[in-house]
Amino acid sequence: MKKILKSSILVPVRFSETDAMGIVWHGNYLKFFEDAREQFGKDYGIEYLDVYEQGYFIPIVKSEISHKASIFYGEQALVNVILEQRDSAKIVFHYEVINNNTGQIAATGMTIQVFMFTTDRTLELIKPEFYRIWEEAQNWLDE
Amino acid sequence: MKKILKSSILVPVRFSETDAMGIVWHGNYLKFFEDAREQFGKDYGIEYLDVYEQGYFIPIVKSEISHKASIFYGEQALVNVILEQRDSAKIVFHYEVINNNTGQIAATGMTIQVFMFTTDRTLELIKPEFYRIWEEAQNWLDE
Amino acid sequence: MKKILKSSILVPVRFSETDAMGIVWHGNYLKFFEDAREQFGKDYGIEYLDVYEQGYFIPIVKSEISHKASIFYGEQALVNVILEQRDSAKIVFHYEVINNNTGQIAATGMTIQVFMFTTDRTLELIKPEFYRIWEEAQNWLDE
Amino acid sequence: MKKILKSSILVPVRFSETDAMGIVWHGNYLKFFEDAREQFGKDYGIEYLDVYEQGYFIPIVKSEISHKASIFYGEQALVNVILEQRDSAKIVFHYEVINNNTGQIAATGMTIQVFMFTTDRTLELIKPEFYRIWEEAQNWLDE
Repeated sequence: MKKILKSSILVPVRFSETDAMGIVWHGNYLKFFEDAREQFGKDYGIEYLDVYEQGYFIPIVKSEISHKASIFYGEQALVNVILEQRDSAKIVFHYEVINNNTGQIAATGMTIQVFMFTTDRTLELIKPEFYRIWEEAQNWLDE
Repeated sequence: MKKILKSSILVPVRFSETDAMGIVWHGNYLKFFEDAREQFGKDYGIEYLDVYEQGYFIPIVKSEISHKASIFYGEQALVNVILEQRDSAKIVFHYEVINNNTGQIAATGMTIQVFMFTTDRTLELIKPEFYRIWEEAQNWLDE
Repeated sequence: MKKILKSSILVPVRFSETDAMGIVWHGNYLKFFEDAREQFGKDYGIEYLDVYEQGYFIPIVKSEISHKASIFYGEQALVNVILEQRDSAKIVFHYEVINNNTGQIAATGMTIQVFMFTTDRTLELIKPEFYRIWEEAQNWLDE
Repeated sequence: MKKILKSSILVPVRFSETDAMGIVWHGNYLKFFEDAREQFGKDYGIEYLDVYEQGYFIPIVKSEISHKASIFYGEQALVNVILEQRDSAKIVFHYEVINNNTGQIAATGMTIQVFMFTTDRTLELIKPEFYRIWEEAQNWLDE
């Protein structure tokens, strides 16, 4: 059984994010994922700058998107994000992007982040202390 | 044994493509993939607008990126792209992004595209005639 | 004395919008201007899609940005937008982007839009009827 | 009579740079301007990283774009860039973006950059020595 934390955010589609097919350009979903991670950080008290102040970057090392339906200009994306608890020093988020005007799932996706020292950009292979403490303070849900 | 076609393109990194970590923002690799597909289209006589004139959009339905190393501003990305021959009505590209200044593999990735009718945006489930003819005219390599 | 309408919106800065100087990349202010026009459209009942349904695109024909201070990742941009009443068939917006964390003016700017027929992409030289009616229904402020 | 230096670059339009009107999104012209400044830097031996190594950022403090015609996906933008010699510590570029498929001027524009110390991000009010030396070594044209 997985332990998870959930968050979500409503993202209005920018005109500049559409392409000549009239829909959100596929690569822009990674911006929606980023918006969702930001919201998650606010909701659970672990924002990007907090992590940075602890001495770490948390770059994306893997990302996946599966597109199921389109989002047109003028529509809104509802992004649900789920953090999975992991033993390893990896941050794994899963995403579901809903076209909030039609209710359809527009896309699902996943990202993996690692901990990298800001000083020398080398990889931290074990879970940093501050992150372990943060994990312990959360009320994880059973999925 | 797979049948493949190869192409490659050199992409200079734009300042606007970097982020506050000083490196190419991860989502911009999907733009490099797009550049590589364009080059592939030119090299093999099957550009996006040709496909459009045949009555099809070929939207991305799946994309994956794995990041191995960073690309900094001022460096160039060499993108190698490989099309795999498939029986189904899917266009599957694999990518390798090399930091051309260090020779390191910065990322690998994959995209899947499908054929969608421009008229009603429904899915074409069998390989369109024009695409089948194009496939037959190519000199596929054994991988 | 000018007649004006005002609106404003709070825009969180995306990580992908920063550059290798650690600040919002200058060109992204045009996205903030776009966000402000969207908000204006919602506030005054004249959204982009309403205009489109009346048979018009309203492309930007001129834009200007003056940068006064930086906005860093993690900060928010407050964008104030002002529409000026004009006799000619032009839509002129002025913008003020405040770094909402420091209170400083980060940028000021201006855009001009024209009316273009969606059918043949030619310019409409006189103010469209629907727009004239909309203008008359507003409670313009003296600046 | 003005003293100038000229450069130019051919930029293929990315699909991701188009919008739902089917044309290049207006804000992306600032990326074309950036591409042209890069090319200029290469042509005249004064690249962004050279400036950085001398201890300066050269942020954009003002930008202007006037749009005259559209550029569609599949077309190429030819960007002509002109540096004007100035007495003050400002870098002023003028741009002309040609739709290379139609020969039409798509846009004209201008940017102003200043010298900012990388150490404390304060403004350098006089022309830096390294820049003055670079200026003297160039073969300026009379406009």
